[in-house]
Amino acid sequence: MRYYSYEEFVNDTNKLIDKVKSFHPDAIVAIARGGLTLAHAISEGLNIREVQTLRTELYDEDTKRSSITIHNSTTLKDIQKVLVVDDIADSGDTLKAVMETLECENVNIEFQSATLFYKPSSIYRPHFWINEATEWINFFWERDFK
Amino acid sequence: MRYYSYEEFVNDTNKLIDKVKSFHPDAIVAIARGGLTLAHAISEGLNIREVQTLRTELYDEDTKRSSITIHNSTTLKDIQKVLVVDDIADSGDTLKAVMETLECENVNIEFQSATLFYKPSSIYRPHFWINEATEWINFFWERDFK
Repeated sequence: MRYYSYEEFVNDTNKLIDKVKSFHPDAIVAIARGGLTLAHAISEGLNIREVQTLRTELYDEDTKRSSITIHNSTTLKDIQKVLVVDDIADSGDTLKAVMETLECENVNIEFQSATLFYKPSSIYRPHFWINEATEWINFFWERDFK
Repeated sequence: MRYYSYEEFVNDTNKLIDKVKSFHPDAIVAIARGGLTLAHAISEGLNIREVQTLRTELYDEDTKRSSITIHNSTTLKDIQKVLVVDDIADSGDTLKAVMETLECENVNIEFQSATLFYKPSSIYRPHFWINEATEWINFFWERDFK
């Protein structure tokens, strides 16, 4: 398990901001909870005021298949390009479901995704990412507040 | 102007978590953008999975009065107690409008509010707060990402 500190986060997030700049997003959708702090940082760095959140629940069923429920529908009015933000593409289930749902519900909006970590075994590859995840990441927001 | 670092944030947020525990919230509404990182930290500390966001726009008009528009309506289903989170109660306009709107739209839900900073001149006093703001606060999320 690797502790991921605020200092590393600042460094990586600034690299990620440099990458996503080319997409020129006018809104950010954060996947809660993991994407919240990152979405806040990117929104400040790119001066994007429109930040919304989605919450997902993954139900592992007895069968091999699992289902994902997406809560809090977004209201993207007068928006052309949306950056979807999460901390990590791990299994990729969440990001894949969120991107497909958002694209289906908003056919005139372009969506791209950004994460700090990407696991090569993920079924979904984000448009922008910084680190390959080779072990379990313990993010500072998961450890510093208890 | 005072720079407010991540280290101070960890210290203050843990104090705030200790205070809001007594309220036993089952959901958090973050006021975007300022409340996002704090809402994430509190939600991890209290293990609250239901986190939603509201965005407000303050229009300063030529007259002395200003109006506030609240975007992204929340969907609070099967929720009894909601903690509304922002970084600072400065003028208090935003928090006052958000609290009144949420209470009006959800008469069966109890709302309480929490901030890191409270300015004594604010027209709204949060239920939970940590520091009195005596000067302009430059939060780490406003300075570290550019």
